[in-house]
Amino acid sequence: MIRVAIIGATGYTASESIRILLNHPQTKITYLTALPQECAPITDIFPACRGRLDLPVEPVDLEKLADKADVALGCLPHKVAMDFVPDLLQAGVKVVDFSADYRIHDVDLYEKVYQVKHTDKERLSEAAFGLPELFRKSIVGATLVANPGCYPTAASLALAPLLQEKLIAPDDIIVNAVSGASGAGRKAALPFHFPEMNENLFAYAVGAHRHMPEIEQILTDFTNQKVQVLFQPHVVCMDRGIFESIYCYPLTNVTADQLAELYHTFYANEPFVRVLAKPPATKNVAYSNFCDIFPTVAKGKITVFSAIDNLVKGAAGQAVQNLNIISNIPETTGLI
Amino acid sequence: MIRVAIIGATGYTASESIRILLNHPQTKITYLTALPQECAPITDIFPACRGRLDLPVEPVDLEKLADKADVALGCLPHKVAMDFVPDLLQAGVKVVDFSADYRIHDVDLYEKVYQVKHTDKERLSEAAFGLPELFRKSIVGATLVANPGCYPTAASLALAPLLQEKLIAPDDIIVNAVSGASGAGRKAALPFHFPEMNENLFAYAVGAHRHMPEIEQILTDFTNQKVQVLFQPHVVCMDRGIFESIYCYPLTNVTADQLAELYHTFYANEPFVRVLAKPPATKNVAYSNFCDIFPTVAKGKITVFSAIDNLVKGAAGQAVQNLNIISNIPETTGLI
Amino acid sequence: MIRVAIIGATGYTASESIRILLNHPQTKITYLTALPQECAPITDIFPACRGRLDLPVEPVDLEKLADKADVALGCLPHKVAMDFVPDLLQAGVKVVDFSADYRIHDVDLYEKVYQVKHTDKERLSEAAFGLPELFRKSIVGATLVANPGCYPTAASLALAPLLQEKLIAPDDIIVNAVSGASGAGRKAALPFHFPEMNENLFAYAVGAHRHMPEIEQILTDFTNQKVQVLFQPHVVCMDRGIFESIYCYPLTNVTADQLAELYHTFYANEPFVRVLAKPPATKNVAYSNFCDIFPTVAKGKITVFSAIDNLVKGAAGQAVQNLNIISNIPETTGLI
Amino acid sequence: MIRVAIIGATGYTASESIRILLNHPQTKITYLTALPQECAPITDIFPACRGRLDLPVEPVDLEKLADKADVALGCLPHKVAMDFVPDLLQAGVKVVDFSADYRIHDVDLYEKVYQVKHTDKERLSEAAFGLPELFRKSIVGATLVANPGCYPTAASLALAPLLQEKLIAPDDIIVNAVSGASGAGRKAALPFHFPEMNENLFAYAVGAHRHMPEIEQILTDFTNQKVQVLFQPHVVCMDRGIFESIYCYPLTNVTADQLAELYHTFYANEPFVRVLAKPPATKNVAYSNFCDIFPTVAKGKITVFSAIDNLVKGAAGQAVQNLNIISNIPETTGLI
Repeated sequence: MIRVAIIGATGYTASESIRILLNHPQTKITYLTALPQECAPITDIFPACRGRLDLPVEPVDLEKLADKADVALGCLPHKVAMDFVPDLLQAGVKVVDFSADYRIHDVDLYEKVYQVKHTDKERLSEAAFGLPELFRKSIVGATLVANPGCYPTAASLALAPLLQEKLIAPDDIIVNAVSGASGAGRKAALPFHFPEMNENLFAYAVGAHRHMPEIEQILTDFTNQKVQVLFQPHVVCMDRGIFESIYCYPLTNVTADQLAELYHTFYANEPFVRVLAKPPATKNVAYSNFCDIFPTVAKGKITVFSAIDNLVKGAAGQAVQNLNIISNIPETTGLI
Repeated sequence: MIRVAIIGATGYTASESIRILLNHPQTKITYLTALPQECAPITDIFPACRGRLDLPVEPVDLEKLADKADVALGCLPHKVAMDFVPDLLQAGVKVVDFSADYRIHDVDLYEKVYQVKHTDKERLSEAAFGLPELFRKSIVGATLVANPGCYPTAASLALAPLLQEKLIAPDDIIVNAVSGASGAGRKAALPFHFPEMNENLFAYAVGAHRHMPEIEQILTDFTNQKVQVLFQPHVVCMDRGIFESIYCYPLTNVTADQLAELYHTFYANEPFVRVLAKPPATKNVAYSNFCDIFPTVAKGKITVFSAIDNLVKGAAGQAVQNLNIISNIPETTGLI
Repeated sequence: MIRVAIIGATGYTASESIRILLNHPQTKITYLTALPQECAPITDIFPACRGRLDLPVEPVDLEKLADKADVALGCLPHKVAMDFVPDLLQAGVKVVDFSADYRIHDVDLYEKVYQVKHTDKERLSEAAFGLPELFRKSIVGATLVANPGCYPTAASLALAPLLQEKLIAPDDIIVNAVSGASGAGRKAALPFHFPEMNENLFAYAVGAHRHMPEIEQILTDFTNQKVQVLFQPHVVCMDRGIFESIYCYPLTNVTADQLAELYHTFYANEPFVRVLAKPPATKNVAYSNFCDIFPTVAKGKITVFSAIDNLVKGAAGQAVQNLNIISNIPETTGLI
Repeated sequence: MIRVAIIGATGYTASESIRILLNHPQTKITYLTALPQECAPITDIFPACRGRLDLPVEPVDLEKLADKADVALGCLPHKVAMDFVPDLLQAGVKVVDFSADYRIHDVDLYEKVYQVKHTDKERLSEAAFGLPELFRKSIVGATLVANPGCYPTAASLALAPLLQEKLIAPDDIIVNAVSGASGAGRKAALPFHFPEMNENLFAYAVGAHRHMPEIEQILTDFTNQKVQVLFQPHVVCMDRGIFESIYCYPLTNVTADQLAELYHTFYANEPFVRVLAKPPATKNVAYSNFCDIFPTVAKGKITVFSAIDNLVKGAAGQAVQNLNIISNIPETTGLI
């Protein structure tokens, strides 16, 4: 049994990690932590856990952590994570970190985008980027995995085959993304108050979302060419789900059939990517670790549709996938 | 033109009042007030107002109020209202008050239920209770109208005919109510955060909701017998709507047909009560001032279903109905 | 491995059964059937299955069934099931039947309620009633289990302790139930068309729902006293969830604390019943096999709140619980 | 009073037309028609009408129509409309037609897109295109107005200023649109069955939606240059609302401030277009005839966001706006 701690066990990515791990045959949740003022039995914080998980949520104690866990899932917000991760690693546990703090390799870019000094720069180069379909090799054996953002996961999986094959202009890519409201986290705020969010759809962070440079870095790293993306997120009245509609400028003539073949080949051995023959639907990936992708040609553009559950393949599911990899057990364990 | 001020113009009952009054041919909104820290142009607070209403929301100024308005809609919370209402009346405007502060005639009961000293007791007996279908006569000519609660409106209209005719035991009535989330107001809070409230239904205030004594008072006053009600509210993932399923112990044999006839007769001249031949649906009353009622007999009980829009017949629509009455214009103006 | 066939694999209870069984460590789905005109690969019918289950849905062939399966889940509608179940049993598989056809012991009652001749009467007495918390002994060793209705499951678990202890009048019970729309099945119909059902709540089948006699039979059988219930269902704009608010006439003085103790004792060894200290919420039982119950006293009545996921504890989860029992494996396997 | 008939009074655009007209001070609904098999009192078809409109829905009778109405709103589906419109006009009423049958000037294009012979070709050139903000002059005095499609309304209003000023490449425009489910009409179908559509978002009609040529025609006509658009629609779990995110290739350097100024000038006198300083939200335009637009610059593209209520500015509201124009009354009557 792999013993798992969840650091920051009061948000949606933590509750989703718990849901997944309770179905995982080779892990056991052993330790839950949060800020002192948020501590309580996990069944008080998430009543759905009653009868399934009976643990207190405690302020983190590194000795306890070292004693109780093999792997820690760091469900902390950006900027907070980098204050904890060094200690977690020091305690001898492996870490899958959900925050952005170890995702961006370029410190200057990180500091510009997140508007904070990075306090653990030297470790940036050590952290593996936890998108297994594109960077599996570097994850195997890692002690620190930076779990990708939700939007970048869906976008990068959709775009990697096209960019690798140099079928599209790497600097003329539009990613139109719509997310369910759980992506905004578990803090009550007026825009996400039910009577405001219900029956509503709006765009936000125009030209400025933090996942834009993350998408660009992933695809630039993977394809060795400078990729630039116009990423535009929206929120809609769903709990879960990300749907991305991606528009690309083709560099060569290519048919929908050829694209289908390319994607099927590219993802032939990937258990969590499903290449479809028609547009995906968020409901078909809800509560699953799948990314559903449909590449096609429309009106002279290469158009790719990509759907994930933002809390699963976009967060907790992918983290468990990474946990499986760094624990040397089959990657799909507990996830299919 | 009746000039209307809205006191406390930042919540859902205020925005709904604005929506209704902008369609009202004989009123003009002239003055909007709120607490100083909440003041802003109304179009910033409610962007839906842009192009329809161009007014600042200002801290209340009684001279301005006296100068600008004939009637004030008091959209203030319980306990706050009684600090303002005396001044508003003093300023010479008529007041329709949405709070509970002038609804309960019995000061002791008010103070017990709302856990606060009443600071304007003497005015309790002056205030008309603004449920026109039951208390129209006392509203005509009133300067202060206590607009009823949302749940009590639906319950009282459903029960009044039965109690008046002494068809049911007045002390064995169960009112099971389900409300949309706008009933909880416009303050962000975790239970109403979209990912918590969506796909959710829960009960609250078991045996203790403040509308329980209000329902009992209305029906006791109207029928001159002591009425006791077990009122149980729930919230569900809708914006709007209250649906009440009411179960009564019959004192005599009565058929569904006889009940239909009774209700049709009782409400024959009421433009806002629709007696149906099958259960109502909240969507059929959404955005309208109607109360849809279906009385019937089931398994030995008299069962009555009642549906309203909690923001309209349950708040702003009924307030405008009262405003029409105290302004001596046809009661349905702007509402049908 | 227990090999499972699903008969009637195109509806919501089938898709939910698949979801649960794919996480079940001791079962394997081996055979899927449907009416000829509905047959297709399961991944076409439920695209969420892609990458998880690769089986055709075929017209049922009893030899194949006998060859491929140990247990059949009968996800057929009422009236159709009794045409298939005898053959399924004849083929040597055990059957958990989701329909009502083997639930009602009294043939005359069945025929009156379902308006059809029962064509397999003699087997009515053999079928175990699959509510393990109340009838576990009769399920052990059974070859045919009648899986209970969704509403009756939530109601019976909520009422059994009270009736067993004779704390309430057995003929004055009101069950007010609200269900998510998946309870209406997977056939498109105008009342459940999204723009009609969204933002809507309505009552239906007043005094006449087929689950009313089922609830009465369960509780009469379990407590050896004639139980009568006024059961009133409603539908609301949620996918999943049943919430029941149950009002009972107390025969003796009892406190909320005493009720809590009673329920905790009654369900002390039941893994799927959670006795709460406050009202449940449908979202806390979504996608789980739990029934959350809160008994209390309000305004002179004993009030019990009960919540389940209609597709899980109300259908597929309970079926798997029964499958576990008749297969002699731990009852919670694959369910917690 | 302008007497209005509604032809095809059983769908969502008809019910929305009724809702709007009942608040309109200068119109009276006098005649409702539908196919014989769909006829019934309007209060049976739309129970929300009870107490507001008491008319039968009858098979159309042209003499009655001529006798009872000045204007007909044609709420018929594509292909059916052109069978009725000639007779309606012949009967002497003006017609605002909601279908596509008189929108596309090029018969060949119409026949290709709608896969049907046009049976009233000669009238195509007479019909005014009912997008008043762009084509008001041609609407004044018209007897037949082709009311625009919902998606084209939002897209054309968003793009017209940019194309008129030649700020963007007319052949490199991407319109990513998301619509509420009422856009699919009032016919029950599995994809829109509540448990399928709820918590769901999907793309459809990739590269092939019928509104794509309509958008291109509008903008080509208005700006006298050949416009080509990649239009991609999606549906999401909302009743109402269209949100379009539009990405354009700039031909010159332009700032967000300059765009704001351009749009404010362009729409200075348009009561139904609101130019915003941040992205719109569908909820702010729900139940209103407004189109909210936010033009800006993001990552080298000109990006425009546009939101309408698909049933109001996208259908019934715009039809009433056209009705006002052809009836020579103020254009905003009954709409603000």
